[in-house]
Amino acid sequence: MRILGIDPGIGICGFGLIDFTSGASMKALDFGAVTTKVDAPLPSRLLELYDSLSQVFSETKPEVVAVEKLFFAKNITTGIAVAEARGVVLLVAEQNKVPVYEYTPNEIKKTLTGYGTASKSQMQEMVKMELSLEKKPKPDDAADALAAAITCGFLYRNGKNDEYKFSNTKGDKIKL
Amino acid sequence: MRILGIDPGIGICGFGLIDFTSGASMKALDFGAVTTKVDAPLPSRLLELYDSLSQVFSETKPEVVAVEKLFFAKNITTGIAVAEARGVVLLVAEQNKVPVYEYTPNEIKKTLTGYGTASKSQMQEMVKMELSLEKKPKPDDAADALAAAITCGFLYRNGKNDEYKFSNTKGDKIKL
Repeated sequence: MRILGIDPGIGICGFGLIDFTSGASMKALDFGAVTTKVDAPLPSRLLELYDSLSQVFSETKPEVVAVEKLFFAKNITTGIAVAEARGVVLLVAEQNKVPVYEYTPNEIKKTLTGYGTASKSQMQEMVKMELSLEKKPKPDDAADALAAAITCGFLYRNGKNDEYKFSNTKGDKIKL
Repeated sequence: MRILGIDPGIGICGFGLIDFTSGASMKALDFGAVTTKVDAPLPSRLLELYDSLSQVFSETKPEVVAVEKLFFAKNITTGIAVAEARGVVLLVAEQNKVPVYEYTPNEIKKTLTGYGTASKSQMQEMVKMELSLEKKPKPDDAADALAAAITCGFLYRNGKNDEYKFSNTKGDKIKL
């Protein structure tokens, strides 16, 4: 199964495609990030993101998409722009008829490392090991996207992934 | 000039098209709301919104779009969904090559009524008067969209509207 992890963002949006087969180790097929012009108006950046992501979908042909749930603890201004970008990510997934699963940052950390407070560096080390990469994937946004995709694979393996599918908007609760 | 006001939302998204000519009174050409299925998953609702809004743009042929700026004071869960919907609104505007102007709720209230703490009912009364409507426009989301469009017209008249154009993402600041 081809799982595409996406780390939504307006300036840089990471993606990572893995191949997941039950019982075998996971493989990274492709990863990277799409970027938008920092000086462009927001609507124009959202269109850039839309066009680039549409291309990623048509090139990577994912069967499942994995994204991180949003939290707005740190910076609400940045948070709003990320949510606007995430709206475009979900739209493109739906236009490509690919089901979306979502996980909180803690669920991703816990699934990969066993505990929910792992550091960014520890997470990247686990992504590298799990996918048998020679070095930590770059940029960070691609590593985050791969972490979401690996989480999706682990949860499939445990038969628990269905709990994380978007069922309806009410199910898309943000716990604060 | 045809100004399309939009009140972004995931379940219901209001729109209102007005005709604005300098020196003449403004006219409502069309208003209403597009809705999405309440039980559908979020990605599917965003696609519904995208398709419906694309149709509104092709039918109303706006030259300018006016939207409200986002604030997340009340409910952050709803706020995130609204921001995701707003991302789709801005995307559709950009795909249709229509420039977007945005105003805080207070700027809209102040422009229409003279003070920033006007009630919903007072605002709807002003929309009705300004557009010479026989009764208050319904639903509320359409009235809010018309209020944004009228604000845009007033600010054009005063030569101040350029300050409210999306220049770049940094300019899209949310004051809290």
